Amino acid sequence: MECSVAKSADLVGDPWSLVIVRDALLGVTRFEDFHRRLGTPRATLTQRLRSLVDSGILEKVDGEYRLTPKGRALRPVIITLMRWGDAWVRDDEPPTRIVESGTGRPIDPVLVDRETGTPLDDLRVRAEGPIVEGLPRRDRTPL
Amino acid sequence: MECSVAKSADLVGDPWSLVIVRDALLGVTRFEDFHRRLGTPRATLTQRLRSLVDSGILEKVDGEYRLTPKGRALRPVIITLMRWGDAWVRDDEPPTRIVESGTGRPIDPVLVDRETGTPLDDLRVRAEGPIVEGLPRRDRTPL
Repeated sequence: MECSVAKSADLVGDPWSLVIVRDALLGVTRFEDFHRRLGTPRATLTQRLRSLVDSGILEKVDGEYRLTPKGRALRPVIITLMRWGDAWVRDDEPPTRIVESGTGRPIDPVLVDRETGTPLDDLRVRAEGPIVEGLPRRDRTPL
Repeated sequence: MECSVAKSADLVGDPWSLVIVRDALLGVTRFEDFHRRLGTPRATLTQRLRSLVDSGILEKVDGEYRLTPKGRALRPVIITLMRWGDAWVRDDEPPTRIVESGTGRPIDPVLVDRETGTPLDDLRVRAEGPIVEGLPRRDRTPL
């Protein structure tokens, strides 16, 4: 019984797949557009797109690659990865902003507990399950 | 000027790094513990840990690998990746739950707009910046 982080990482845990999914979320659908935007070598791009189709993340319809519901569900992963890079990896101004359509109001995405709306950073939480077996019992772990 | 998704993916966008960060978030600090839990080949584990230290995600203190603030800030990435796998990759019951310490109440993490508390899935949002240049202008994109 493998942890879902490992299972997910096996499907999308490589740099090309992550930027392909990002571009797909932005509306890119064509091989040539992925190639031009990402600079992925053609053979690599072919392989990654096929792999994402095999994983049910993309589907090929009329020669275009479209996100499935499973693929669109990766949005929070891509957004949190982007925000981490904005905050911790780059020195310059983040080049991409997420804004509300219509108003243009900038959106600051934060992970909260759905029931109470409390940001996870303000909650004492811990993980439960086989994954913590053998670890020192802690009242609080970051995960 | 590279997108933050690409920059982030270069640092943590591989399956071993992602499960190492997951385990570090759970409190694992020792080489032997990472090795035993993850089954990572020793040479690969050595290389990945060194790379995570070089990236400022882990620091080596008294022979233990500890998350830096930059590393702890990856928590939302790991949690959203786990939840995606729970929902879309596995058929069985998710093995890991996140609960509130003390009460044991299950936490359902969701990405919301910090200002209004509205789940991003319920908002019309779009990306702005060089990353959308050349793309058809859309009122709404998933990202």
